[in-house]
Amino acid sequence: MPDGLGGGGQSHRLPRGAHPGRNIPSAGVSGFGFVEKARFGFFNHAKGAYDPDDFHRLEITNLDRTLAWKKGRPSVHSHASGGGVLFGVVGGHILALTVARGSLEITVTLHSERFDRRTELSVGGYVLHLP
Amino acid sequence: MPDGLGGGGQSHRLPRGAHPGRNIPSAGVSGFGFVEKARFGFFNHAKGAYDPDDFHRLEITNLDRTLAWKKGRPSVHSHASGGGVLFGVVGGHILALTVARGSLEITVTLHSERFDRRTELSVGGYVLHLP
Amino acid sequence: MPDGLGGGGQSHRLPRGAHPGRNIPSAGVSGFGFVEKARFGFFNHAKGAYDPDDFHRLEITNLDRTLAWKKGRPSVHSHASGGGVLFGVVGGHILALTVARGSLEITVTLHSERFDRRTELSVGGYVLHLP
Repeated sequence: MPDGLGGGGQSHRLPRGAHPGRNIPSAGVSGFGFVEKARFGFFNHAKGAYDPDDFHRLEITNLDRTLAWKKGRPSVHSHASGGGVLFGVVGGHILALTVARGSLEITVTLHSERFDRRTELSVGGYVLHLP
Repeated sequence: MPDGLGGGGQSHRLPRGAHPGRNIPSAGVSGFGFVEKARFGFFNHAKGAYDPDDFHRLEITNLDRTLAWKKGRPSVHSHASGGGVLFGVVGGHILALTVARGSLEITVTLHSERFDRRTELSVGGYVLHLP
Repeated sequence: MPDGLGGGGQSHRLPRGAHPGRNIPSAGVSGFGFVEKARFGFFNHAKGAYDPDDFHRLEITNLDRTLAWKKGRPSVHSHASGGGVLFGVVGGHILALTVARGSLEITVTLHSERFDRRTELSVGGYVLHLP
């Protein structure tokens, strides 16, 4: 189920039907394309939060995302990397992504079971669990 | 449907049967491996074309490709990134790729429907459309 | 078949059942997440071996792996890339990976046939073959 995003859309808002919900227990998403802006985060264990930075105009070489659940609500986790005008690649955890004048081609793979993220103290973060 | 490319082949020429055609409406390709040379492009909106640069000897960490159609003809779109001898990663839109003395392992996922790329003026480029 | 790894586990040791064996002829694995340490290698054709280097604390933006066979024994080949605290991305062939305080979400795709890696002198390395 590939789809193209373009024309000012934000890839972070997935196409209708691509969010986990009554009809989509869980899903994986992969993609590549061009974005006007990406806000990446690097997890800071001391703060328990992501340190952010913004990057502009990237040829996204891959985006990976798992749509699951956390405490009964949809939970999206995604990482991406992309090359700039001189082809150096930056990337990390995605905090925000704006496609704008580019096009991002994504493939959504549906899973038949509901996956949950649960806190694990030993990790200091959420870990995906299978049913 | 994974396949290995090696022995001087060019990954840009896909294995026979992996191009969209009468029997393959559309497909996604992903892969990783070693290439002797990659020519990446970064889209220049002012020119409406890709600015190219060549990189030699890369451990390709991922290659993603969508095989679709544009104006009735097969249309390939692919991005990749890869690490050099000091492990810094470069990447972008693929203009050309030569495997030569390496091996590139790819997986082809066939789609049952025909996807079309169509110009969208708001984007200034082609956007993938589902049927 | 996505799964989460965390709590000090090593992603290089796959979850039980995810190794090729009597019940799993071959498989592809993809994933992303956080690792405490990655040892990447860059293939040195002159030595016929990988030159290694270690990197700490990376947001892995993608990991790709093929589980196949070589001379009758299971053969794992995997590449990954990941961003550091300043979002620069490093990557290459994976020699070792430690998840530790992070979480790595992986998806395993089973293949019904057995794939073999065989030496090809023209390449100077192993190439994946389909049945």
